[in-house]
Amino acid sequence: MKAGARNQIIGTVKSVKKGDVMSLVKVDITQVSTMASVITTESVEDLDLKEGDQVELVIKAVHVLPVKLP
Amino acid sequence: MKAGARNQIIGTVKSVKKGDVMSLVKVDITQVSTMASVITTESVEDLDLKEGDQVELVIKAVHVLPVKLP
Amino acid sequence: MKAGARNQIIGTVKSVKKGDVMSLVKVDITQVSTMASVITTESVEDLDLKEGDQVELVIKAVHVLPVKLP
Amino acid sequence: MKAGARNQIIGTVKSVKKGDVMSLVKVDITQVSTMASVITTESVEDLDLKEGDQVELVIKAVHVLPVKLP
Amino acid sequence: MKAGARNQIIGTVKSVKKGDVMSLVKVDITQVSTMASVITTESVEDLDLKEGDQVELVIKAVHVLPVKLP
Amino acid sequence: MKAGARNQIIGTVKSVKKGDVMSLVKVDITQVSTMASVITTESVEDLDLKEGDQVELVIKAVHVLPVKLP
Repeated sequence: MKAGARNQIIGTVKSVKKGDVMSLVKVDITQVSTMASVITTESVEDLDLKEGDQVELVIKAVHVLPVKLP
Repeated sequence: MKAGARNQIIGTVKSVKKGDVMSLVKVDITQVSTMASVITTESVEDLDLKEGDQVELVIKAVHVLPVKLP
Repeated sequence: MKAGARNQIIGTVKSVKKGDVMSLVKVDITQVSTMASVITTESVEDLDLKEGDQVELVIKAVHVLPVKLP
Repeated sequence: MKAGARNQIIGTVKSVKKGDVMSLVKVDITQVSTMASVITTESVEDLDLKEGDQVELVIKAVHVLPVKLP
Repeated sequence: MKAGARNQIIGTVKSVKKGDVMSLVKVDITQVSTMASVITTESVEDLDLKEGDQVELVIKAVHVLPVKLP
Repeated sequence: MKAGARNQIIGTVKSVKKGDVMSLVKVDITQVSTMASVITTESVEDLDLKEGDQVELVIKAVHVLPVKLP
């Protein structure tokens, strides 16, 4: 999909929990290799973030947009 | 890390591109199994999203928060 | 309103669906001309995005902030 | 596009300003009728938000995802 | 301001660093008492989050919208 | 915490309202001095935002990530 987002990850829906207004969708990830993050350059320098560092990528579920594949 | 986010993914920094105010960080994902998305129940019903469906999870890089591991 | 956001769109509330913690508000748009998106330059180049291209702007409802007008 | 987002708005790219890491894309909106916002029910009650109210929808450009149409 | 956001914090601009497309604005906070976060109920239960717990609220700068006061 | 976010604010959980899928957490802020916002340079110039200006920082609760401290 030609979307202006750096992270596009394929998976299979594992569960859907429907609430009154919001729903929680869980997805088993089939394959992901590289992900991208944009942060301030000040943060990069504060963390002294560089190639080879081990990181944990934290992403709130509200920021994850599922697109149903044909 | 005890953070209130459903998605916490481990990886290794692959590259850091520093800009004047923002930077782009690429991360090779070591291991991820399940991811979570929160969308409106209306969207779930419109898409008729259910277990077994193939989806693409789209996540803008600005929504990805890297935490440096010791 | 002097807010640091590029998109400020006037409309009339059409419906409010109240949930236990979150609510879904629908708004009929009276008038909008131009909208703005910020993405990585890498995405612009990957998509070869340029003047005249047809696009669909996708915006999750959690990212839309309503301000009540007097 | 079968995306889990309530707002999908068609338009034509008007301008692209490329920066070192981020770019600003302006889009002329061809047609939009209804938009959706998700806020806390507490906010709805604080604002006494109801059908017929005039609102301004404020959306930061980083939250707007452009998808290039064929 | 009658905005549908739970967090509205008053402060004084301390510095503005202008980049080619994005800018970083620092603000000295004059007064803030209570802040609000919305997370999944699953996260609340995983973290066993309850009254009296010490927390750190992490907020990316791209999610902070400044509104200039008269 | 070595996170790539400019805003990290310490506080004490005041209340937790659990919903079917989402929960609202209120936090009494113990101490915050400076906060940061990233907006487009165009917005800075439109607002003529500069040192000494009084601003209100508006942050939706979904963008606030709580991390439980030991």
